[in-house]
Amino acid sequence: MLFHVRMDVRIPHDVPAETAARLKAEEKARFQELQRSGKWRHIWRVVGEYANYSIFDVDSNAELHDLLLSLPLFPYMQIQVQALCRHPSSLHDDDR
Amino acid sequence: MLFHVRMDVRIPHDVPAETAARLKAEEKARFQELQRSGKWRHIWRVVGEYANYSIFDVDSNAELHDLLLSLPLFPYMQIQVQALCRHPSSLHDDDR
Amino acid sequence: MLFHVRMDVRIPHDVPAETAARLKAEEKARFQELQRSGKWRHIWRVVGEYANYSIFDVDSNAELHDLLLSLPLFPYMQIQVQALCRHPSSLHDDDR
Amino acid sequence: MLFHVRMDVRIPHDVPAETAARLKAEEKARFQELQRSGKWRHIWRVVGEYANYSIFDVDSNAELHDLLLSLPLFPYMQIQVQALCRHPSSLHDDDR
Amino acid sequence: MLFHVRMDVRIPHDVPAETAARLKAEEKARFQELQRSGKWRHIWRVVGEYANYSIFDVDSNAELHDLLLSLPLFPYMQIQVQALCRHPSSLHDDDR
Amino acid sequence: MLFHVRMDVRIPHDVPAETAARLKAEEKARFQELQRSGKWRHIWRVVGEYANYSIFDVDSNAELHDLLLSLPLFPYMQIQVQALCRHPSSLHDDDR
Amino acid sequence: MLFHVRMDVRIPHDVPAETAARLKAEEKARFQELQRSGKWRHIWRVVGEYANYSIFDVDSNAELHDLLLSLPLFPYMQIQVQALCRHPSSLHDDDR
Amino acid sequence: MLFHVRMDVRIPHDVPAETAARLKAEEKARFQELQRSGKWRHIWRVVGEYANYSIFDVDSNAELHDLLLSLPLFPYMQIQVQALCRHPSSLHDDDR
Amino acid sequence: MLFHVRMDVRIPHDVPAETAARLKAEEKARFQELQRSGKWRHIWRVVGEYANYSIFDVDSNAELHDLLLSLPLFPYMQIQVQALCRHPSSLHDDDR
Amino acid sequence: MLFHVRMDVRIPHDVPAETAARLKAEEKARFQELQRSGKWRHIWRVVGEYANYSIFDVDSNAELHDLLLSLPLFPYMQIQVQALCRHPSSLHDDDR
Repeated sequence: MLFHVRMDVRIPHDVPAETAARLKAEEKARFQELQRSGKWRHIWRVVGEYANYSIFDVDSNAELHDLLLSLPLFPYMQIQVQALCRHPSSLHDDDR
Repeated sequence: MLFHVRMDVRIPHDVPAETAARLKAEEKARFQELQRSGKWRHIWRVVGEYANYSIFDVDSNAELHDLLLSLPLFPYMQIQVQALCRHPSSLHDDDR
Repeated sequence: MLFHVRMDVRIPHDVPAETAARLKAEEKARFQELQRSGKWRHIWRVVGEYANYSIFDVDSNAELHDLLLSLPLFPYMQIQVQALCRHPSSLHDDDR
Repeated sequence: MLFHVRMDVRIPHDVPAETAARLKAEEKARFQELQRSGKWRHIWRVVGEYANYSIFDVDSNAELHDLLLSLPLFPYMQIQVQALCRHPSSLHDDDR
Repeated sequence: MLFHVRMDVRIPHDVPAETAARLKAEEKARFQELQRSGKWRHIWRVVGEYANYSIFDVDSNAELHDLLLSLPLFPYMQIQVQALCRHPSSLHDDDR
Repeated sequence: MLFHVRMDVRIPHDVPAETAARLKAEEKARFQELQRSGKWRHIWRVVGEYANYSIFDVDSNAELHDLLLSLPLFPYMQIQVQALCRHPSSLHDDDR
Repeated sequence: MLFHVRMDVRIPHDVPAETAARLKAEEKARFQELQRSGKWRHIWRVVGEYANYSIFDVDSNAELHDLLLSLPLFPYMQIQVQALCRHPSSLHDDDR
Repeated sequence: MLFHVRMDVRIPHDVPAETAARLKAEEKARFQELQRSGKWRHIWRVVGEYANYSIFDVDSNAELHDLLLSLPLFPYMQIQVQALCRHPSSLHDDDR
Repeated sequence: MLFHVRMDVRIPHDVPAETAARLKAEEKARFQELQRSGKWRHIWRVVGEYANYSIFDVDSNAELHDLLLSLPLFPYMQIQVQALCRHPSSLHDDDR
Repeated sequence: MLFHVRMDVRIPHDVPAETAARLKAEEKARFQELQRSGKWRHIWRVVGEYANYSIFDVDSNAELHDLLLSLPLFPYMQIQVQALCRHPSSLHDDDR
């Protein structure tokens, strides 16, 4: 089941630089783990912004919520989730 | 080069039903043509709305504009385009 | 799997009164069918507006989309869907 | 009498972690007390956000205001309240 | 129990003038009936707009919804309702 | 001459608790003084928010501005003012 | 007593051209009458828009409302009114 | 003196196709006349929208307003104007 | 050449009181200098807000930008500028 | 390939003055380097705001993202990017 997610990262400027760097490193590691598992199916950077559009492929709403909550940068992100479904005209099997 | 596109279809209720049906059939044909060519890389329906999120893979801004203008439903769509780029942490080659 | 849905009904004033009355009757019948099936779990009117908040309990995003599309008033509704999940502090089993 | 409430929690990042943890524990206790009393009838997490949709069942506007003000996280929440009423087509007795 | 209501009237310009005049006359009669009953406690015009702020004093959410639905101009009004309660500092008994 | 005023109070969380308590006490005293004078004609709490709707009865725009500026919480309030006038259909003499 | 007013004119395209021309001529005549009386103190066109910013000098809210309602284009205008007062630092007597 | 202008064209779907075609042809002719004169310094299409960003180089606000009003599609355009000035760091003489 | 300017002053609460007082005194002096020169033609307070509407009369966009940048409170103001022009119906010579 | 970019600079008031001054000097140097290379084709100040409209001429979305990320003030800017294309009516070769 697919979901469209936009994440905007807003780290306050008074968070110490080392804390921010550590969080970003942990975020990258967690992201790649989820990407390898197939749960975080796509990610693209929005040009000019500290933001991404992502497509998640999960078994339930609850699984998606738990994945997003597990992100180290979650406290500093504004997240918008929209449920997706297969487009009836699509010829591609995997845009399910 | 990838672009994120959201399309909201708003066909006024006084467009004759046959006209709307014909436009939708033409839209589907044109969409599948572009999907086969690889230009319209992904499409997903937004649950509960007459709208989609799409990812286009084109050679230039101008090519994307021409593709969108060629859609039979273009006069009845509100379209938002955002330029994308590869996420530096991504392990997938094709989220280019 | 639960979803929060807000529906705002906007029937243009030049839709003939009989058409509107027929659509509303069909909507009521379809609504009660879905309510009986347990898919349309809750519905409440928003005081002072021609709108409702509803909770749907479905097996997938696609099932929700198909249910909403099957509503006779769908072409005249603005619909917003948000995925829900169980609150970790809840003592109630059925707020799943 | 039912009310639809959306709560968005925004704890500033410079609130000490212990303070935040204590407030959340107190919030959970107060929430469960209100849930047991039947006043806080439903609660659902919004997927991907630190937010919930809730349904309150109270005797008056004033009772609802007092309940919301009594929440330990009230100073850090943005709250929107909308009065609800029974939908005339509903077959369920308790969507009153 | 008090509610704050803002009503914006938007009669489409292609509604026949006689229809609009009749609706306005019916609206005035219904309004004065509700004002006399004490349910429609206050009304003020917003300067420069075809809109009003009103205070309703009703026994329940459902009663308010029924009153608003009974207004002849309801189909042409955009209505926003907010639940009110007595301010703790107020010295006036009737700002209840 | 009547004015509709909405006040949203936003005291930053790093204002010391004693300062906030003192400001609120001063605000209450000033409010009751203005209420007794008849200038601050109505006040209602917005359910679930740290906000009020008020009706002021003043002789001029300038008098209203001076009253609002004299409120101890003014620096922490977001205030919206709208000029009102008597509704032509009103049967009440004092909704002037 | 001064008020800041923004007026946006939106004449629907299916209003007959003669009707629109007549309304505009009547608007101009009424405007100049109010300008001569000193009530409509200033008017400026917003560059690129069918809109103006105006300053009215009236004795009361009610007088302003009556003046705006008397404008022949009132049914086709979106109007926003804000109460003004003299700036304490101003050296000009007539920015009262 | 430079101005940034965004124009969104919204031709209602019930304007006859010939009228729309004639207006677009007239718009193109007028546009090219202004482009040749140097007044309409730049124009770019916004990808995916019936809209453009333009830079005008005029002697006064009034001249810009007159130019925009002279456009055949003016009645069907939503126009936003922002005054520009030379950036102090710019090395280019003609970004004046 | 006239411009409509709205200024909203937002001094963060942790700016020391003396700094704020000094900035306000400098702002007043600079304002009166510009008012005397005829460049800052009108200023009015927005009732209930720390904001003003102003009319500037300058020779160019650049002159306006330099004037606004020279204001001591500029770093704490949100400023919106709109180009104005004489209204064709105006009988007043100085609403140029 | 051209892009329209709006940049709003928001340096928090508690960033030390020397840090801000250094960042601005570095920004100016980097800007001029990009301007000389032809990548940052146009820049204009928005009158009255700490903001600019710019036109970039780059080979790809990714190149634009890298350029914007390389700006020393990037962490303090809000950036909006819109893809542009040549207007079909344009007579100028370089509005490509």
